[in-house]
Amino acid sequence: MTAGAVGDGSTLAALAWLGRTIEPGNRYLWAYVEDLGPVEVAAQLRAGDGPQRLQESAGARAQNDSSMFDLEKAAAKGIRLIEPASPEWPGDPLAGMARACAGGEANAVPPLSLWVRGRASLADLVARSVAVVGARAATAYGMHVAAELAAGCAERGYTIISGGAYGIDIAAHRGAVANGQPTVALLACGVDRPYPAGNQKMLEAITRDGLLASEFPPGSAPMRQRFLVRNRLIAGLSLGTVVVEAALRSGARSTAARARELGRPVMAVPGPVTSALSGGCLQLLREGGAIPVGTAAHVIDAIGQIGDDLAPLESGPVLAEDALSADVRAILEAVPVRRPAPVESIAQVGASDVSRALAGLTQLELMGLVECIDGQWRRARRSK
Amino acid sequence: MTAGAVGDGSTLAALAWLGRTIEPGNRYLWAYVEDLGPVEVAAQLRAGDGPQRLQESAGARAQNDSSMFDLEKAAAKGIRLIEPASPEWPGDPLAGMARACAGGEANAVPPLSLWVRGRASLADLVARSVAVVGARAATAYGMHVAAELAAGCAERGYTIISGGAYGIDIAAHRGAVANGQPTVALLACGVDRPYPAGNQKMLEAITRDGLLASEFPPGSAPMRQRFLVRNRLIAGLSLGTVVVEAALRSGARSTAARARELGRPVMAVPGPVTSALSGGCLQLLREGGAIPVGTAAHVIDAIGQIGDDLAPLESGPVLAEDALSADVRAILEAVPVRRPAPVESIAQVGASDVSRALAGLTQLELMGLVECIDGQWRRARRSK
Repeated sequence: MTAGAVGDGSTLAALAWLGRTIEPGNRYLWAYVEDLGPVEVAAQLRAGDGPQRLQESAGARAQNDSSMFDLEKAAAKGIRLIEPASPEWPGDPLAGMARACAGGEANAVPPLSLWVRGRASLADLVARSVAVVGARAATAYGMHVAAELAAGCAERGYTIISGGAYGIDIAAHRGAVANGQPTVALLACGVDRPYPAGNQKMLEAITRDGLLASEFPPGSAPMRQRFLVRNRLIAGLSLGTVVVEAALRSGARSTAARARELGRPVMAVPGPVTSALSGGCLQLLREGGAIPVGTAAHVIDAIGQIGDDLAPLESGPVLAEDALSADVRAILEAVPVRRPAPVESIAQVGASDVSRALAGLTQLELMGLVECIDGQWRRARRSK
Repeated sequence: MTAGAVGDGSTLAALAWLGRTIEPGNRYLWAYVEDLGPVEVAAQLRAGDGPQRLQESAGARAQNDSSMFDLEKAAAKGIRLIEPASPEWPGDPLAGMARACAGGEANAVPPLSLWVRGRASLADLVARSVAVVGARAATAYGMHVAAELAAGCAERGYTIISGGAYGIDIAAHRGAVANGQPTVALLACGVDRPYPAGNQKMLEAITRDGLLASEFPPGSAPMRQRFLVRNRLIAGLSLGTVVVEAALRSGARSTAARARELGRPVMAVPGPVTSALSGGCLQLLREGGAIPVGTAAHVIDAIGQIGDDLAPLESGPVLAEDALSADVRAILEAVPVRRPAPVESIAQVGASDVSRALAGLTQLELMGLVECIDGQWRRARRSK
């Protein structure tokens, strides 16, 4: 144990301090915090006793501690800091990042904490989510398709995740909001100062049902490097990434690359091959293993991976149930409506074994028919 | 031997008679002619002694014999009938159809003969060729891309094969002709009466350096069924098929299906997903295993199957040679410049074994660096 501590000695204070002291996205910091926990790591660095590499990254900032002030000021603005122990921490998708990062994928370093603005639970929103990203200098075609895809996915209960930028990003957010559905904007700056200014009104509107989220502390400016760090998180929090329009070099393609590294489906919307803004999508389709998509049904088909039965727009949950195999239907019928049950009891009731029951439940979860609560299963609410 | 014969008893007379007596594309007729030869089969059917199935297909037409009149009248119009023994018969691509047909692929029945108009050799033209097909009711975008792709492929010595129809077909032909390159229009009617009338001027222009070809005798009208029969031949004569614009149901997609059945690459040009005329291409990309292409370099890359080295427009043959592996370069150096040599002697000179030498020669042939003449190999002429 190192003497001293930052802030009030709490985990949140330590994370607030670390987020301001060492630029988010630092792989060594993540690994060190995994080992020792944030309170101990912050105290070490504050005392100048941390590993040299991290101490150098912190530099003179280690001598300041505005953690309590930051947390209080954020709270006054309706901004909270969430961390792995928070109920709304999106543990499932981020576990995939942690595995990839531990496996040597430097671009997949998970966030240590997230600043969040809006009433919804981040974990709830991203559990069924798809990233829709693309060019800032988008065409009318790209904006139209982004809004349509986002609206279609949102209508079926998928949260649209994007970066709040001009062009495709904001068109995707708007497509969700215009349909009264939540959306998450992951920012490369503080959530108190949505960037770019021209999107501010829309980004404020997102906080009503959705969320603004960022690894960067309130007040942070959007800097070039932060966009790349943020892009990995768009890929890491969503079930799959759709690129709508992108030039050959573009941030959207970096998001797609991160998604692919994480084993999440990458989709691309084809466009006129005569348009430079279709070049990135064409390259993703030709070389990046991207799945070509043109409709929300195509997108959900790709992230649901349950075949064509779910693809047509016409097939809502009722039709989806009709399309189930007899085995999976038996498992669905064994899932309690209210009180969640463990997979073992569902397997018993459904006359299945545990591994097949789990496979069936996973399929049913992707179809939105069941939900998993603390490792136990029940029927999904039909409210959506 | 059956008594009697059609025309002057020649193979050409027999094939001219068969083409008018039994609708081309008949799988049973093809198999029967494979067994007995066209002269014997024609004589049998003419005498009413043929297999019942074929005799029924022939019907009352078996009682007429206008074969000599047809051949003479065609010749007067500059039209010739070619058959497997003709020097310009495209034996290599059609051998693939014969294999597929013998293997049970009913859609791949090879032609028994072809009516041809134009000075060029059909075999020469289709040896390096690509089919470019698509919607009749094409958009300006589709027409533009078809012409650009065709011009780009034609410039690199690939013959454009298409169906002479309005829209994408004629744009592709025009792209080749406008660049002074030959193109082949495979018609669903007689080559003496190019259809549709609105394309007549362009189709006549094709005969200058390229060819009009058809299985259907001169004077034949373009009937619905004949377009499907013709489509299989577009796929069968080319190294690969590019679909530029197609609605969900379209003739171009039937051509693509035939190409896939023959194991030839199927390519599709992406377009705006908001356009109904992109629907067929999107479906080919999503479900048909089509390769997305946007440039001539992409197309040649797909049909050449020699990786990216050949893809960039910048890399002509000289650069292509630079990209060869040491083994393949040694084989190239062993290929005589003028007098063709058998693979065995090339393998010996190139310090390789026969099977590796053959693989190398095949690659070099696809790259346009060597050519095969009667089973022997020499360097390709650089005239193009």
